[in-house]
Amino acid sequence: MPGKPATRLYVPDDLAAGLSVGLAAGQAHYLRSVLRLAAGAELALFNGRDGEWQGRIDGIGKGWCSIALGEAIRPQAAEPDLWLVFAPVKRARIDYLVEKATELGVSELHPVRTARTIVERVNVERLQANAVEAAEQTERLVVPRVHPPETLPALIARWPAGRRLVVCDERGHAPPIAEVAGGLGGTLSGGAAVLIGPEGGFTDSELDGLANLPFVNPVSLGPRVLRADTAALAALAILQALAGDWRETRGGGRQGL
Amino acid sequence: MPGKPATRLYVPDDLAAGLSVGLAAGQAHYLRSVLRLAAGAELALFNGRDGEWQGRIDGIGKGWCSIALGEAIRPQAAEPDLWLVFAPVKRARIDYLVEKATELGVSELHPVRTARTIVERVNVERLQANAVEAAEQTERLVVPRVHPPETLPALIARWPAGRRLVVCDERGHAPPIAEVAGGLGGTLSGGAAVLIGPEGGFTDSELDGLANLPFVNPVSLGPRVLRADTAALAALAILQALAGDWRETRGGGRQGL
Repeated sequence: MPGKPATRLYVPDDLAAGLSVGLAAGQAHYLRSVLRLAAGAELALFNGRDGEWQGRIDGIGKGWCSIALGEAIRPQAAEPDLWLVFAPVKRARIDYLVEKATELGVSELHPVRTARTIVERVNVERLQANAVEAAEQTERLVVPRVHPPETLPALIARWPAGRRLVVCDERGHAPPIAEVAGGLGGTLSGGAAVLIGPEGGFTDSELDGLANLPFVNPVSLGPRVLRADTAALAALAILQALAGDWRETRGGGRQGL
Repeated sequence: MPGKPATRLYVPDDLAAGLSVGLAAGQAHYLRSVLRLAAGAELALFNGRDGEWQGRIDGIGKGWCSIALGEAIRPQAAEPDLWLVFAPVKRARIDYLVEKATELGVSELHPVRTARTIVERVNVERLQANAVEAAEQTERLVVPRVHPPETLPALIARWPAGRRLVVCDERGHAPPIAEVAGGLGGTLSGGAAVLIGPEGGFTDSELDGLANLPFVNPVSLGPRVLRADTAALAALAILQALAGDWRETRGGGRQGL
């Protein structure tokens, strides 16, 4: 396999050998004015479907850039289908949450309004841009989709068959998350989701209603209080470690240490 | 047990019924000028040793405040002895890392310089203040101690007998973290530590040297690249879930859902 270029960009276009891809104006500006790249410079492109490809700038100007695709660098690999469903938190924390959830391998991000949700406005475009940037910088080949906000009951009403919903219950009497995650099966078969409440927590009636749903597993995250964003990242990491694709090594040439 | 006051403050003093405690000038300013509390107001105090206590302001002025202790709110509970050993990262990320590590229940924070560590200055006082604030806001009764930075070899040279060191090896061929964490034993008996490298990663010789130490367990954190701070939080959450005190429920009156 050819070496990896330092710059990786997400594009929506199809990627295949011999194709030429036009970048968005913002990306062209970034390459030309921030990185100061010129025609002939190499970079990598990915689209979340076709793996990662070598590309070479074959034309660049103010607000436009054309990339000629070369060889494939990495094939697209299957990833666990793990959603994060979360009540929006304040700006710095929600940006961090989207970045970290992207690194931890979530497939979709669903902001939901709960009874005690205080943050009402969600800038879906900004969150989607955060997810793109996190994927670009951490070599992920998938960019999780950020959905528009809706109420928790609306999302529950159209919940997909077969997908488990792991609800972080801050009241402390649900089973430990490791116990539940260990029973979810290989690479989260059928899909799974983590649900995190707002800073003020869920109401008792929300939690009791959720617990009665056949696809819900309430879980506890230990004896200490966690902020909403911390709980989200902890739950995602534990699900990946116990039921997702962290159970296998990355499979380099060497084995063991 | 009496109800919990909304304001919790960490103090270094011994706490017991009938004692009177003088606050630091910064805390007195916070109570008087930010929260606008006056004599008679109730708050909670903890010191990391004696549990949490009700207190009542019995005198407050510019830069001073005296608190009369009332009843005990919560006893001090034993916590897992889990260190985070980390190469310092940039300012916003290191603040976030200390906050989150405190919520996740670490007992000590050890900044270390590795071969590729770029950030040289560490403001130990600011990090300690972050840890205090995170403990105050999330009802934790322990404030992790932030140690002065040292080189990784210096810390390894005085490594305590019996403490496991879980090294996050980004090369991808170490055993999965869940496999290793599952074998560490109940509430991290004997103590454990997570070691996270700098943004540029460990060198091969650092990782090979660490792997030869009898107290080291190299682990893999899945197939995707994680930023250093993400790797730290993921590893801490997984260790707490599988070998720490997240394996038990908090034990409220109700059981199960």
